[in-house]
Amino acid sequence: MRASVLYPDGRLLVEERPIPRPGPGEVLIRVLAVGVCGSDTHYLRHGRIGTHVVEHPIVLGHEAAGVIVGVGDDVPESRVGQRVSIEPQQPDPSSEPSRQGRYNLCPHMRFYATPPVDGALCEYVTIGAAFAHAVPDSVGDDAAALCEPLSVGIAAIRKAEVTMGDSVLIAGAGPIGLMCAQVARAAGADRIVVSEPDATRQAMAPRFGATEVVEPGAEIADVSAFIDASGVPAAVAAGVHALRPAGRAVLVGMGADEMSLPTSVIQNREIVLTGVFRYANTWPAALSLITSGRVDLDAMITGRFGLDDVRAALESDRTPGSIKAIVYPGGNPPAPLIQSPESAESDTVEDVHP
Amino acid sequence: MRASVLYPDGRLLVEERPIPRPGPGEVLIRVLAVGVCGSDTHYLRHGRIGTHVVEHPIVLGHEAAGVIVGVGDDVPESRVGQRVSIEPQQPDPSSEPSRQGRYNLCPHMRFYATPPVDGALCEYVTIGAAFAHAVPDSVGDDAAALCEPLSVGIAAIRKAEVTMGDSVLIAGAGPIGLMCAQVARAAGADRIVVSEPDATRQAMAPRFGATEVVEPGAEIADVSAFIDASGVPAAVAAGVHALRPAGRAVLVGMGADEMSLPTSVIQNREIVLTGVFRYANTWPAALSLITSGRVDLDAMITGRFGLDDVRAALESDRTPGSIKAIVYPGGNPPAPLIQSPESAESDTVEDVHP
Amino acid sequence: MRASVLYPDGRLLVEERPIPRPGPGEVLIRVLAVGVCGSDTHYLRHGRIGTHVVEHPIVLGHEAAGVIVGVGDDVPESRVGQRVSIEPQQPDPSSEPSRQGRYNLCPHMRFYATPPVDGALCEYVTIGAAFAHAVPDSVGDDAAALCEPLSVGIAAIRKAEVTMGDSVLIAGAGPIGLMCAQVARAAGADRIVVSEPDATRQAMAPRFGATEVVEPGAEIADVSAFIDASGVPAAVAAGVHALRPAGRAVLVGMGADEMSLPTSVIQNREIVLTGVFRYANTWPAALSLITSGRVDLDAMITGRFGLDDVRAALESDRTPGSIKAIVYPGGNPPAPLIQSPESAESDTVEDVHP
Amino acid sequence: MRASVLYPDGRLLVEERPIPRPGPGEVLIRVLAVGVCGSDTHYLRHGRIGTHVVEHPIVLGHEAAGVIVGVGDDVPESRVGQRVSIEPQQPDPSSEPSRQGRYNLCPHMRFYATPPVDGALCEYVTIGAAFAHAVPDSVGDDAAALCEPLSVGIAAIRKAEVTMGDSVLIAGAGPIGLMCAQVARAAGADRIVVSEPDATRQAMAPRFGATEVVEPGAEIADVSAFIDASGVPAAVAAGVHALRPAGRAVLVGMGADEMSLPTSVIQNREIVLTGVFRYANTWPAALSLITSGRVDLDAMITGRFGLDDVRAALESDRTPGSIKAIVYPGGNPPAPLIQSPESAESDTVEDVHP
Repeated sequence: MRASVLYPDGRLLVEERPIPRPGPGEVLIRVLAVGVCGSDTHYLRHGRIGTHVVEHPIVLGHEAAGVIVGVGDDVPESRVGQRVSIEPQQPDPSSEPSRQGRYNLCPHMRFYATPPVDGALCEYVTIGAAFAHAVPDSVGDDAAALCEPLSVGIAAIRKAEVTMGDSVLIAGAGPIGLMCAQVARAAGADRIVVSEPDATRQAMAPRFGATEVVEPGAEIADVSAFIDASGVPAAVAAGVHALRPAGRAVLVGMGADEMSLPTSVIQNREIVLTGVFRYANTWPAALSLITSGRVDLDAMITGRFGLDDVRAALESDRTPGSIKAIVYPGGNPPAPLIQSPESAESDTVEDVHP
Repeated sequence: MRASVLYPDGRLLVEERPIPRPGPGEVLIRVLAVGVCGSDTHYLRHGRIGTHVVEHPIVLGHEAAGVIVGVGDDVPESRVGQRVSIEPQQPDPSSEPSRQGRYNLCPHMRFYATPPVDGALCEYVTIGAAFAHAVPDSVGDDAAALCEPLSVGIAAIRKAEVTMGDSVLIAGAGPIGLMCAQVARAAGADRIVVSEPDATRQAMAPRFGATEVVEPGAEIADVSAFIDASGVPAAVAAGVHALRPAGRAVLVGMGADEMSLPTSVIQNREIVLTGVFRYANTWPAALSLITSGRVDLDAMITGRFGLDDVRAALESDRTPGSIKAIVYPGGNPPAPLIQSPESAESDTVEDVHP
Repeated sequence: MRASVLYPDGRLLVEERPIPRPGPGEVLIRVLAVGVCGSDTHYLRHGRIGTHVVEHPIVLGHEAAGVIVGVGDDVPESRVGQRVSIEPQQPDPSSEPSRQGRYNLCPHMRFYATPPVDGALCEYVTIGAAFAHAVPDSVGDDAAALCEPLSVGIAAIRKAEVTMGDSVLIAGAGPIGLMCAQVARAAGADRIVVSEPDATRQAMAPRFGATEVVEPGAEIADVSAFIDASGVPAAVAAGVHALRPAGRAVLVGMGADEMSLPTSVIQNREIVLTGVFRYANTWPAALSLITSGRVDLDAMITGRFGLDDVRAALESDRTPGSIKAIVYPGGNPPAPLIQSPESAESDTVEDVHP
Repeated sequence: MRASVLYPDGRLLVEERPIPRPGPGEVLIRVLAVGVCGSDTHYLRHGRIGTHVVEHPIVLGHEAAGVIVGVGDDVPESRVGQRVSIEPQQPDPSSEPSRQGRYNLCPHMRFYATPPVDGALCEYVTIGAAFAHAVPDSVGDDAAALCEPLSVGIAAIRKAEVTMGDSVLIAGAGPIGLMCAQVARAAGADRIVVSEPDATRQAMAPRFGATEVVEPGAEIADVSAFIDASGVPAAVAAGVHALRPAGRAVLVGMGADEMSLPTSVIQNREIVLTGVFRYANTWPAALSLITSGRVDLDAMITGRFGLDDVRAALESDRTPGSIKAIVYPGGNPPAPLIQSPESAESDTVEDVHP
């Protein structure tokens, strides 16, 4: 099969690799669409994220959808042909966090596109059968792939305990910030303030749920939840200051290993601060949000690429107005199963990807 | 002032009574609109609800909105003129439940229209200043009055912990059932099944959030939450059976003192069953749901009455298609502050109330 | 190996059976001690529990401890020789409840001594490696076996959310009721009322944590939690009535499929009622409670038997003062690894089991 | 009456002041015992804590017990003569946090000994009747006064959600750290590690619950909760690092306004970090812990003083081995109501306070 491989020296080559074989309990998936994430781009540019270093060639990509084409032992043959959204986690179900329902915190986790584990920017992948979530026909391949970043938003909004009538401040209007804004709206938030310095991103935020868009320095107060999707220490400090008593702060954006936080505010207002590390048990909610129309993932797609153009896809974050690029490892973008208005108007790959 | 007074023998008379004086920390409110609740009707027909007996003449009505026309000691004069939605509770803030944030469970509660405490079907009432919630101009008097039953829905959905992607079964499509359906939708529920025997009510349910409407005997399974707004034992039992493992059942509808419940199902699936008794801390969320358009209260109004026609208002539940009647103690229905489309089209009181 | 086998016609025979082989991820355990549970006795006497029917010969016993003597694929050889307490569950880690941390509610559960799955009243058993919990030398075989019923108590007290200063009513002073009392004490409960009709059991309750022992009809009020370990409908109704507002009721004892419950009390006080179905993630806490001396399991043992005397062990619940019988499938009771005072004084098997 | 008054210039004078009059809903209390807190000492030495500045003469002391000698309107006369522990908070019950059960976060709070509100180092004080908690005869005046710092420990352990079998790291073995250790033990914690640099304090920690005492630099890992009672940034950072996935960190000690925290650890392990600001709804649990013997407050008392010796009491924190000083505003330490062994042996004020 063809795979896009990142080398430690920064080269990105399309290579032939053997099609993987599904182990017991696994399925083999032909990959149809892969979203590009900032972490993929970060590996390309820096060769590492924290302690995860690209020491050997690696296949990037962890936002993926496809169709099951084979099954391992203990998986019913009837799953072949099923279109699925991939939850790219392979935890050890026996670890203590897994047994407690927090499998994302499993110390033995193997996660797509995290060295040394390969990801999905290739034609075929395997995953545990329970992590290949069947998608209905009404959900296109692109949206199925974007269940992954949507899951990050769901995890963040759950940790923030956003519910009806809440007010939320979100720092950063990148893909994850916008995803959080959409999910906050779906969860019933009333006031959704997005803080973002970039004018182009500011302009996009209302479409994805923002009821107010402000500059990072703006004075915001009395919100019930703060989500950081910026990784910027000043934004985190400002966000904590913006919270009402007993408010909740959730760190989503990856930033420095350490940050100076206003601990006296955390104490005096009994703020709860936490972070999300990926997600657990989010796919059913993600698919619900898509099929009920509460979130719009297709509207976030601003670029479409083939496997030979992964570098362009990974670099597309530098294009003003870019939110999310999709790579189609199988060739040209497939015709959507159901022709929705959104995909119709944006189905002009040539414009974006000359 | 004029007041509609229910006598123990069932007479309902409009009488002159002295305008009450606001005590320390209280406000005096000129009542503009009062929703009619099934409990008001129940007192009219049966003279009691449980241990609460109409032993002395009483003013009914606890879903009320008005305008502040006077203040007691310790309340700023600036509140005069403020239009408010009334939270009709007068708990003792020193009781243990009040201190814990559950003031609705205060053993010393004085609640509107619950013997021997008078309600709001009169021209003027008093309430603690913190229980008179300012409403913005965009919220009409009717909706302001209906914050009260909306609060019951909010309390129920909170207890049911309904969130994004959840599936909910609601038994009963009366005013409270429909309110719960609206709030469930606002909280992100995906599948909202309403069970109701009456064809007219069945027909109304989709407008208020139901995604499926079924007969009471229908086989429903694997829902994450069940709300009983029927008070019918068979419906409660069926609702518990419909829950998935760890699902939540919330009893809202008043029924018999005792019910036979499927305890083996509660055990084997670790179902959580609880009830709501009024509400606490719901008004901010209620106003948010209204102003953001996530619930539509005006669409629930099916009758408008003057103070001389309270009996007709209380009896209007027998009119097919009736959901909610509003009484205007000050005379004719006031012109809405802001002419909204909903109030415009339904502002034909004469049609409903000849 | 030798196994005690219950036949559908009620015969209980010791038979030779092949030693099981550990599958992938499993361990093979030589069984050292097995506690007898009321459910074992129920199968003996009635041939069924609910929908679980003894249609084929079955090995009973699910409270077990032993020593690992073999490992399957993917289990480190170093575990051989480890003394373990067995968590007798075999859930499907891919099921939705398992992924959410509630593996006890897994619909594909295979549980020891629940038809058609064999239990531990035999010389060797297999279990998933993560369900064989290593025990320190300071915990004897008997206590290691009794981690299982202790886990039921832990699950119940967790569901009841018992914490410092709470007051708890426990209905029933059988083995599970006494276990709940011990765990309630360990969790910081202040007042622990045990309701029990039997005088012998009443006399034992204070030793296991009860601060008050009452007859079932006694008037108890204002407790924060109620645990039913009786299965008696009148006790459950009385327990709900005894709760303070927002109190919690947990059904542990198996009773009728349906019970009449005081739903008006549940509503008016916003009582939370739920049940426990076995347990999840309890073994670490169970071992902590034992090693720190917060619970005393050895004091609950009132009979010791060999594999040839399983019928006597199962019938020992009819002996006044009996709490818990232990069967030693390997022969005579082993000498305790560490000679504790409790085991010393009760190590007179001949007295108990002539 | 006599009052110990701190002046902005640091003078501490005993003055005559009028006995306060209880307002509506208040009680008048003759003060019997007052514990000295580090914050009192801080005001003496620095004239401020954060934004609270001693701009006018102020009476310090907020850990107090006494006997009710008068009542205001709406308080039953029968409370006169009752011995009480004072919860030194005067929140506005109408504020949003108060209504939600978090009255400690009330923005209109008036708190003893926090400028400009006077405290209890005087002969008589007033407080809201519900904040004067009746104590049984078995609880001495000293312990009744120390319900206040005990409440801080309860609040911290609740926020840390410590329960049976948990492991806790506590930084700092000062009065609050030791209180937290005692409460952690009462809540069922198994392993209680106390980190403390001072050898004298290290030696005292095991008596109050510590199962391990370590130097601040020690490598601790995999604890379920971390409580900071040191205010030292390095200790907080180390504490967060010591947590297991999904562990909880609670900041109790007052330190710098800002601290550098390991945010990547917070994210990668989904650590929950929060703080406690005083307490709410802790007195019932505090009294339960004392009467059941689960905490020992008398053992923490290392100095006893009269009102003329408040400066010595406030400075006694510099005496090695000092934990808690008590001031008796009424003169010499009163004879305990019930002569308990603890108070008997330590009732030698002259030894401690020459």
